[in-house]
Amino acid sequence: MKALQITDNPKEKIKINEIPIPNASENEVLVRLTAAALNRRDQWIREDKYPNIKPYTTLGSDGCGIVEQVGSEADKDWIGKKVIINPNIGWGSNPKVQSPHYQILGMPTNGTFAEYVVVKTDRIHLKPEHLTDEQASALPLGGLTAYRAVFNYGEISEGDNVLISGVGGGVATLALQFALVAKANVYITSGDNDKIQQAIQIGAIAGANYKESNWNKDLLEKSKGFHLVIDSAGGKGFSDFIRMMKPAGRIIFYGATQGLPTTLDLYRAFYYQIKIQGSTMGNDQEFVDMVRLVDTNKILPIIDNVKPFSDIINAFDEIKSGKQFGKIVIKF
Amino acid sequence: MKALQITDNPKEKIKINEIPIPNASENEVLVRLTAAALNRRDQWIREDKYPNIKPYTTLGSDGCGIVEQVGSEADKDWIGKKVIINPNIGWGSNPKVQSPHYQILGMPTNGTFAEYVVVKTDRIHLKPEHLTDEQASALPLGGLTAYRAVFNYGEISEGDNVLISGVGGGVATLALQFALVAKANVYITSGDNDKIQQAIQIGAIAGANYKESNWNKDLLEKSKGFHLVIDSAGGKGFSDFIRMMKPAGRIIFYGATQGLPTTLDLYRAFYYQIKIQGSTMGNDQEFVDMVRLVDTNKILPIIDNVKPFSDIINAFDEIKSGKQFGKIVIKF
Repeated sequence: MKALQITDNPKEKIKINEIPIPNASENEVLVRLTAAALNRRDQWIREDKYPNIKPYTTLGSDGCGIVEQVGSEADKDWIGKKVIINPNIGWGSNPKVQSPHYQILGMPTNGTFAEYVVVKTDRIHLKPEHLTDEQASALPLGGLTAYRAVFNYGEISEGDNVLISGVGGGVATLALQFALVAKANVYITSGDNDKIQQAIQIGAIAGANYKESNWNKDLLEKSKGFHLVIDSAGGKGFSDFIRMMKPAGRIIFYGATQGLPTTLDLYRAFYYQIKIQGSTMGNDQEFVDMVRLVDTNKILPIIDNVKPFSDIINAFDEIKSGKQFGKIVIKF
Repeated sequence: MKALQITDNPKEKIKINEIPIPNASENEVLVRLTAAALNRRDQWIREDKYPNIKPYTTLGSDGCGIVEQVGSEADKDWIGKKVIINPNIGWGSNPKVQSPHYQILGMPTNGTFAEYVVVKTDRIHLKPEHLTDEQASALPLGGLTAYRAVFNYGEISEGDNVLISGVGGGVATLALQFALVAKANVYITSGDNDKIQQAIQIGAIAGANYKESNWNKDLLEKSKGFHLVIDSAGGKGFSDFIRMMKPAGRIIFYGATQGLPTTLDLYRAFYYQIKIQGSTMGNDQEFVDMVRLVDTNKILPIIDNVKPFSDIINAFDEIKSGKQFGKIVIKF
């Protein structure tokens, strides 16, 4: 089968290789992929910006496909079922935080950028019927991360003013969709005015371009303050959030692509009882809850474009450029 | 009666004045104070480092006394009872955060540094029997702040490794006592080695002097990491806490006496799902719960020294020096 792998060749860091189709062992299933989606993580691994990279691992955390083989007789009813894959491996018993053995599918275990993938049976879930395979493949990693940030740590309530930074990214765009389902008033930021307009078409109230100096004042005036911020940028703008929060506001961050903040107004933060909460991925129960939320509310993950598997290296380049709005999906 | 008031004289910012004994109106009680305790807030008001200072207000947030008069017939059973006073005024209906009308007893309403004080009947609670009047007066503001930080936001559990910075301060010392009752492993910091020894005598496992360069490495080695930090210093040390946290750790801060941090390791904080939570005071239910905790566990608030009311200006000077371990109490 064909598989997109990380190599040990510095000039050609990722490459489609021909490798054997794996077999499902006990408590495992073999899934023939119909669609897979990219995450920034995949490109970071390509750029060597990720710990513990193991050459000749098949990348890819997000996938949808059909179960073709089971390793245990007890799992035989799964054969022929259309499934999505929970990319968590070894979260562990503490719902609050992943265990030291935690991994994400696609490094160091073989992932979804291949014609077939083997995963534990407890990682697969029936694809929600309202989704195409491409839409379903766009859901797992981004949906899980957004769900934990918005619902668990974010404690979102109807009528909350919510600010989601960097809309267009997979997690941010799903967070926008989840916040709308929760009947929040959603505001967004982007460095790209077209993305701001796209988010407004989806249901955001207003947005601001964080490259403009007044972005924070502008959003503060429009919103009268935020109950919840969902951020993955960090950097200088992170300090600005403190000023923009309502009392008992929550700032949830799942990344820091713009680096670290240079200050933090602890005075305002303690007086107004503001929570600043780090978040990454989500536990297995949250995965189940996220899929149910998407199913119940018929949420359609937003896809920027779909490419054939043969074109996957271009998909990586697009992820790097950051121009996409929603997910880039690979069709098999 | 005699009352310690803030003046409008820049040379003599606080002064004992002779003023009339107030009367209890409807839903109010007149309490004859037997003991009152100082908080840093009182000295900050003296130094003009507090918003909305109203001259000729009687200072003082913490007090214990005897109800001598009630403004409503329904409250007559309170007469003669020994009570402590909840210093919250107008917290409001949201348990998560104080309302915009929130005040603390002793500015801008008249407080406990007087022979008598009038408060709403719902602010008084029976003094726990195991406490002397001096010990009871040491409890309200510090106990409430410590309770919310340790139990509500801190989510303390038996066996947690807890770091309390700046031990000796009223809130920090009560937080130490509360954390011990919760069966946590408590570590402390101070700028004073004598205070570290005093905290160890009370039950802390170990401490470090934050004026020494290795304080953080030292505590990290001894503890193997913290589940919970309770801080009111902020400053450079605040950034160090991030490195010292266990996964899913909580950093709760109720002040920033050392100023603002200059960076914050968001990368570690999001990967390990760390919470950084601002906290101030606590709601009225937490006050009730705090008094019950003290009563049930026969906690004795730590008193540095007791002074007669005539010596209260020296008590302010002592608070400023920061040399005390536990509360400075005024006896009437």
